[in-house]
Amino acid sequence: MSIKVLLDESEIPRQWYNLAADIKLQPPLGPDGKPLTPESLAAVFPMNLIEQEMSTDRWIDIPEEILDILYRWRPSPLRRAVYLERALKTPAKIFYKDESVSPAGSHKPNTAVAQAWYNKQFGTKVLTTETGAGQWGSALSFACSLLGLECKVFMVRISFDQKPFRKVMMETWGGKCYASPSTETEIGSKFLEKYPDTPGSLGIAISEAVEAAVSDKQGTTKYTLGSVLNHVMLHQTIIGLEAKKQLAKLGIKKPDVIIGCVGGGSNFAGISFPFIHDKINGEQIEIIPVEPASCPTITRGLFTYDFGDSAGMTPLLLMYTLGHNFIPEPIHAGGLRYHGMAPLVSQAAREGLVTPRSIHQLECYKAAIQWARTEGGIVAPETSHAIAATIQEALKAKEEGKEKVILMNLSGHGHMDLLGYSRYLAGDLKDYELPQEDIEKAEAELKDLPKPA
Amino acid sequence: MSIKVLLDESEIPRQWYNLAADIKLQPPLGPDGKPLTPESLAAVFPMNLIEQEMSTDRWIDIPEEILDILYRWRPSPLRRAVYLERALKTPAKIFYKDESVSPAGSHKPNTAVAQAWYNKQFGTKVLTTETGAGQWGSALSFACSLLGLECKVFMVRISFDQKPFRKVMMETWGGKCYASPSTETEIGSKFLEKYPDTPGSLGIAISEAVEAAVSDKQGTTKYTLGSVLNHVMLHQTIIGLEAKKQLAKLGIKKPDVIIGCVGGGSNFAGISFPFIHDKINGEQIEIIPVEPASCPTITRGLFTYDFGDSAGMTPLLLMYTLGHNFIPEPIHAGGLRYHGMAPLVSQAAREGLVTPRSIHQLECYKAAIQWARTEGGIVAPETSHAIAATIQEALKAKEEGKEKVILMNLSGHGHMDLLGYSRYLAGDLKDYELPQEDIEKAEAELKDLPKPA
Repeated sequence: MSIKVLLDESEIPRQWYNLAADIKLQPPLGPDGKPLTPESLAAVFPMNLIEQEMSTDRWIDIPEEILDILYRWRPSPLRRAVYLERALKTPAKIFYKDESVSPAGSHKPNTAVAQAWYNKQFGTKVLTTETGAGQWGSALSFACSLLGLECKVFMVRISFDQKPFRKVMMETWGGKCYASPSTETEIGSKFLEKYPDTPGSLGIAISEAVEAAVSDKQGTTKYTLGSVLNHVMLHQTIIGLEAKKQLAKLGIKKPDVIIGCVGGGSNFAGISFPFIHDKINGEQIEIIPVEPASCPTITRGLFTYDFGDSAGMTPLLLMYTLGHNFIPEPIHAGGLRYHGMAPLVSQAAREGLVTPRSIHQLECYKAAIQWARTEGGIVAPETSHAIAATIQEALKAKEEGKEKVILMNLSGHGHMDLLGYSRYLAGDLKDYELPQEDIEKAEAELKDLPKPA
Repeated sequence: MSIKVLLDESEIPRQWYNLAADIKLQPPLGPDGKPLTPESLAAVFPMNLIEQEMSTDRWIDIPEEILDILYRWRPSPLRRAVYLERALKTPAKIFYKDESVSPAGSHKPNTAVAQAWYNKQFGTKVLTTETGAGQWGSALSFACSLLGLECKVFMVRISFDQKPFRKVMMETWGGKCYASPSTETEIGSKFLEKYPDTPGSLGIAISEAVEAAVSDKQGTTKYTLGSVLNHVMLHQTIIGLEAKKQLAKLGIKKPDVIIGCVGGGSNFAGISFPFIHDKINGEQIEIIPVEPASCPTITRGLFTYDFGDSAGMTPLLLMYTLGHNFIPEPIHAGGLRYHGMAPLVSQAAREGLVTPRSIHQLECYKAAIQWARTEGGIVAPETSHAIAATIQEALKAKEEGKEKVILMNLSGHGHMDLLGYSRYLAGDLKDYELPQEDIEKAEAELKDLPKPA
């Protein structure tokens, strides 16, 4: 029995799939409430990526030079979790794409490399970004290192202090990592003056990274984002496109169930969007984005226009949101602690193409431990949400006596996240149910923003 | 151009290669100075592994059940370091076996799984071991978890305190990890009473692990070792045997140069022994074990009988040694801080089949950073020694204008070792040249022990 399907480099997908060709998005809005023009984004992003962000072409060629970089770890393996299947005594066949094999340890480099490459083509010399847990900052540092770009990462101070090794990773790849708020920017300096002991926030870090980009008078510094935006989703679809080829090698035309965890939405988009295309064309597939019960953006949030950041500096995006002032509980899956959701994932959920699910933290850690003791690897706390849902589905298949094919995305390893495992094993973690009043608060907060057509 | 050669599971080697069939070892000696009998080891190891330890059969079948476990990550990829080649502008072709892909992140699980399996066959219920940096303790916990054995790891206290996440890894796989000296054993308790603030040592940890095994009156607790012994080298040869098949797929009959780092010798044995077999049969291959200049066991040590541990509790092994009282400088490559060397590696060096080299710490970190910024991955500090030698050889090939084939073993990733990178990047690390008087001290210390025939 084959438990691993590998593709040769020559079999790598040569085009990304753009879901915006198949479902209709309402446009992002500027501060004036009018649809955003490409030009209004030009201070922040290079024009080639802005075009990609707004494209409705179904297939977009992947430049050869990007493939040449991705070959370091792509095509990634598709593995079958036979050891977990045996432990669960399920008739389901569980396949997973292993994105933990990238040098930075997650799916993030798929878009970091593409964004760095397009920026380099455009003449960018320096890339800025924010990072929470550090996955994205590491991935961008890695990509910039390979392409000879300078990289500046603003890392939320509390994470910076708690995860000093993420900074070391970034520095190993030549990136610069600042605890945010920092003295590198005006916004940061002012904030520090006022609140010298602040733990920082993703909102402030975004503001600093954007300021660092737009304040460069030569225009060769640009800002990058690791999730949420259309072009980020696009770059991740290589995951699902590879998976499709790999399943085909086993004679499997399509999975019955697809599972990925969602924070901003990018790894889920990567594994699922190429199959949403098939679903729109009549295939029967259940596609499940899994989010933390303590940050239930799609399962309990509002579908409306909201800002991408806490400070309200970004354009307004139509998406599922808990409100841009929402402060999620400090669960260990930092990558899933985001108030919003990618507009493409949100729209797919709105149209019933995907069926979101939320799971509590303790069930996720329990699943991750079972995974480690059967399959072997120690996964990221974010990924543990996908594993918990996979176990739910495998047990459901057992109950129903159905030999379902489940496809899961293993978005990253947990080597930098062992503190969470430690606290779980010590019994120090608790589940947290979001009170209904938090949703009502979000409604009140969002009521004066524009509404979708 | 292909930069990755993968084997299907069906192509995995089905026998290990035993170098003891092709070079003659002098036997280990008991406390009485007489050759050790199998029975004298029976309290510590199961008889099936003792037989393997003493076997001179050239090929030993790998049980199907062990392969079924190894399939989780084996066959491991053979990759070509084209990005490093380009950076060095070398005509050399650099191939590397990527052993960092195992769940525990190094080559160690290759033998951990085999040892756990043979122990289980024998009826063992509990395995004990010591660990320094934590690589071996993690690998054994992982293997025991899959086979349903209990695992007790005695971790040198200073490492236990400095690397708390290694303990979490072991616990995630269900292993128990004790700071050594511990109150779990008599030896440990006595030591703690006398020196309550001791940082511990590998010598004490070995003593505790052995005591924990032999003091089990039911005989179902056994001790395991992660390097040095013949059966450990044997289990690692799957690395080189896979590499040989992978090179053959590219039409490469043999590499010109083979490189691996050496501490106890096991990852080097893994990549090189199958090729030493070819060298004995007439092939021209330069085979280079690389050790830290601060712990130069083969390049400057004595070839004589010595104890494997500091306390003098183990049998006497004929090997290169710096003396069992040697305390290596605290370089970050903890896995290479060992006073002795596997008898098989030592004998191969003695016969000129391998040509050892030592490299200083700063050159190794510099090489590791260059690797991260070209190939992408962040390697273990141990592995950085192999990379430094590979760069030396690639530059030599450039000077000579020769298109040499270099084969290197990438023994593990450095995700748990970022403190060393941090200190290197901050300029806090120094090189250390071992003074000649330390070698003279070892000579004096060893002069009353038996001498080789």
